[in-house]
Amino acid sequence: MRILGVDPGTATVGYGVLDSSGRGGQESLRYIASGIISTPKEFTPGRRLSIIRADVISLLTEYKPAVLAIESLFFFKNAKTVIPVAQARGVILEAAESMGVESIGYTPMQVKMHLTGYGKADKSMVQATVQKLLNLPAIIKPDDAADAVAIAVCHARMLVYDALAVVNP
Amino acid sequence: MRILGVDPGTATVGYGVLDSSGRGGQESLRYIASGIISTPKEFTPGRRLSIIRADVISLLTEYKPAVLAIESLFFFKNAKTVIPVAQARGVILEAAESMGVESIGYTPMQVKMHLTGYGKADKSMVQATVQKLLNLPAIIKPDDAADAVAIAVCHARMLVYDALAVVNP
Repeated sequence: MRILGVDPGTATVGYGVLDSSGRGGQESLRYIASGIISTPKEFTPGRRLSIIRADVISLLTEYKPAVLAIESLFFFKNAKTVIPVAQARGVILEAAESMGVESIGYTPMQVKMHLTGYGKADKSMVQATVQKLLNLPAIIKPDDAADAVAIAVCHARMLVYDALAVVNP
Repeated sequence: MRILGVDPGTATVGYGVLDSSGRGGQESLRYIASGIISTPKEFTPGRRLSIIRADVISLLTEYKPAVLAIESLFFFKNAKTVIPVAQARGVILEAAESMGVESIGYTPMQVKMHLTGYGKADKSMVQATVQKLLNLPAIIKPDDAADAVAIAVCHARMLVYDALAVVNP
């Protein structure tokens, strides 16, 4: 199953694409691509959101993921920036829906938990785990792309747990 | 100038359309239409946001406003619901941009201030002012539609102040 992970934002949206196969607790992950969508600071919010929508649709068209995994937001985290980030997240969810792709949200704590077994793991620990799981020569850069790949890996692991649940109901 | 006022939300988006003309402190307002976009609670966020985008585009196509005036959000207000509302707001801003319509945001305090002269006016005071300014036989219902019309009136008054500023620089 192909997964598109997305880390939403206004200035920068991180994305990461990977393929996941395997069942019964043995997932097989393959890194496909990652990167960022950037929008110029001097553009209006509407114009920045339009760039994000168009670029997400391009990613969905190019990589044809079965699912879009995206960071869930909470108002108490980064209170100052949560509104523009939520605006971008809304546009991304709508873009996925318009392409017939299901979206699923994961909190940063879920991502850390499923990758490292520790919900308060620091960023470098998460990035090192992603590098190891995907057999990459180096950690993914920039950070927003790495975060997006981590969200995709989180979803892949959830799928394995679901498969396990089916094997051992 | 035709103005589309929008009160964003996930379950309900209020809208109001009016025409504004006049200068030098004498605005002339004409009520055109108002109503709400509703989305079913049981739908996914993506599907609800897609309905909102499609319906906003329909409104823009039908009424051809020159500008979309929309409520601005703050994280400290309605903290629990601000994220889904901001997601809807992002989709609305992007929809306007996709149709080449400029968006402008007003805080609830700005709307109250420009309609009643008092930034902490209560809802019934704002609604009564809207009814009077637009020569309506009754206050607008439901509340979300009334709020959207109030935002449109706020923008119309801002335009008159701008005209005044040009007349008396």
